[in-house]
Amino acid sequence: MSSIIDVTLPHTSYNIVISPNTLEDVGNHLTSLQLGKKILVISNPEVFNHYGETVINSLNKAGFKVFYHLIPAGETYKTLESISQVYDVALKHRLERSSTLLALGGGVIGDMTGFAAATWLRGINFVQVPTSLLAMVDASMGGKTGVNHPQGKNLIGAFYQPRLVFIDPMVLKTLPIREFRAGMAEVIKYGVIWDQDLFQQLEAEKKLDSLENIDLEVMDKIITKSCQAKVDVVSQDEKEAGIRAILNYGHTIGHALESLTGYSQINHGEAVAIGMAVAGKIAVKLGMWQEGKTERQDNLIKKAALPSTFDNKLKSPEILDSLQLDKKVKAGKVRFILPTDIGQVEIRESISSEVITTVLEEIKIK
Amino acid sequence: MSSIIDVTLPHTSYNIVISPNTLEDVGNHLTSLQLGKKILVISNPEVFNHYGETVINSLNKAGFKVFYHLIPAGETYKTLESISQVYDVALKHRLERSSTLLALGGGVIGDMTGFAAATWLRGINFVQVPTSLLAMVDASMGGKTGVNHPQGKNLIGAFYQPRLVFIDPMVLKTLPIREFRAGMAEVIKYGVIWDQDLFQQLEAEKKLDSLENIDLEVMDKIITKSCQAKVDVVSQDEKEAGIRAILNYGHTIGHALESLTGYSQINHGEAVAIGMAVAGKIAVKLGMWQEGKTERQDNLIKKAALPSTFDNKLKSPEILDSLQLDKKVKAGKVRFILPTDIGQVEIRESISSEVITTVLEEIKIK
Repeated sequence: MSSIIDVTLPHTSYNIVISPNTLEDVGNHLTSLQLGKKILVISNPEVFNHYGETVINSLNKAGFKVFYHLIPAGETYKTLESISQVYDVALKHRLERSSTLLALGGGVIGDMTGFAAATWLRGINFVQVPTSLLAMVDASMGGKTGVNHPQGKNLIGAFYQPRLVFIDPMVLKTLPIREFRAGMAEVIKYGVIWDQDLFQQLEAEKKLDSLENIDLEVMDKIITKSCQAKVDVVSQDEKEAGIRAILNYGHTIGHALESLTGYSQINHGEAVAIGMAVAGKIAVKLGMWQEGKTERQDNLIKKAALPSTFDNKLKSPEILDSLQLDKKVKAGKVRFILPTDIGQVEIRESISSEVITTVLEEIKIK
Repeated sequence: MSSIIDVTLPHTSYNIVISPNTLEDVGNHLTSLQLGKKILVISNPEVFNHYGETVINSLNKAGFKVFYHLIPAGETYKTLESISQVYDVALKHRLERSSTLLALGGGVIGDMTGFAAATWLRGINFVQVPTSLLAMVDASMGGKTGVNHPQGKNLIGAFYQPRLVFIDPMVLKTLPIREFRAGMAEVIKYGVIWDQDLFQQLEAEKKLDSLENIDLEVMDKIITKSCQAKVDVVSQDEKEAGIRAILNYGHTIGHALESLTGYSQINHGEAVAIGMAVAGKIAVKLGMWQEGKTERQDNLIKKAALPSTFDNKLKSPEILDSLQLDKKVKAGKVRFILPTDIGQVEIRESISSEVITTVLEEIKIK
């Protein structure tokens, strides 16, 4: 029942193990990695309450000496200050270079744990046990780690690869439904940018809005295909020099919306869903793909109960201005990822403000 | 007159340019690196007072848009807080992924600038213009970047390589003499661990205690040979998995002494000098090399006006305990780098406390 995806990068490689109902075996999966004895588990109180004991027992049984440190849930704690606390705990337990930080949680915990692992003693081992759909199909792979700057998301960070990503999809049963849907936005993204089969598999499901409404075997496949899509792209371009940018489909507008709404009104997945709707319509305007296809995409967004429009108190000029601060800006030009077919996108370097504004206005009045 | 050392690592390469009296040309050396327009120079007030204008004029002339940020001199400012301030300045000037952080200063400035470059936007360009002998022959190469934790030196950091190291040995004329000598400790180290010719060249000089007492062409050669030694070792082992550890010759005891004296009484080079004297004597005790060779080493240390003994208020047990916190500890065993010949060392994993104590006591009563 379990799938293993090999991730081979120029100077490292690791496995993604997708194995339903086997969280209590996670320790066994670590024994072959030649890690040191000490593991520091980083989690948040909610996730730790559900799964902390299972994970810690499993690690103990596999012979590890386990410590843990909890960081309150939420993006507001994704700060250098939280990392500084992880350093203090790492020092207290005298972690060595061979020791391991294990992230048990969603994207925020994973990003922070990875950054702490990347920067403690100039890099110690890092293992991801993602517990949100977003983290499973996106944040836990690809090596992007980091924290927010008070004035911008993920501005502080490092590229750092995990030694293992261990996914038990059954932990999604305790995930708040809004977060489940947010993860589904990234799944839909992989269908649009990379995997036509995945897209069609999603079209075949009646609903994509909660774990209960999706057959469990289908869910495992969706996760596996999404991970594979991400790995395919990242393996070709670890440091985001070229093709990796396509993973930002929906994110250009998405990040701007998250930032302008103070990271509180809409979550990352919702922002990406709106961003995909915008990108789809820009592509139609530019004659790059067809109205019918953007409708198929927007139908999936609806089936996942995700938004494709946004609060019209936001003004288009504000959004355009916010795009300038994005890491993906190159010499002042705004880069967009635009679809050309189901399963295919192109990177366009300089989209005119006029086209962007027209589409933003269309979406608002919907 | 200028030398260029090619540094070729598994996934990056860069040049070390050693070019006397050419600081005003540094901008030209950057034009071929395809850097973005923006450069943020990080320095300290003392160094910037001497060389800031020259460097900034040179960068402007080469077409760059230059900003600068000063951090007070000294190890006490080598903190996450200082890095956080660099982030704020980087944000203020909207540095992009193609932008560059340029370190103009000694090891502290270089380490911090490198760490900020490694972690801003998950990695931007980094250029080193070292102004201390220690930074020229050691800290500026090899990719070790980072800051101190309140309870330990360099515990927070990353491996991150510069795009260029530009060395003008003439800037050493404004270096405080005690710092010059500290750098000479690392030069002597390269002679012992790697380069017999360098060792003999140092033996041929009457004095090694100040720039005025050394012929300038010899000084250029000494710097070039030292850089080459470091590069030879680092190229074989970027991430300190094996042979790179030999660069820690003299550092095992050295770090303990620095830490126990609060990083204020003795500087890094002085600590390394004492550490080499200790390591030499341990090697003699173990029959690994000869009394005569340890004397030749200690003579160079004396010629550089560096210490080979230490304040006897420190107790050997304290020193032994302090060794346990070092990053180089593996599963509790203290690792020593010990010489077997001039230009040759071996890594020994578990040196007994008895031998260490005997030598520490010998050195103290000297």
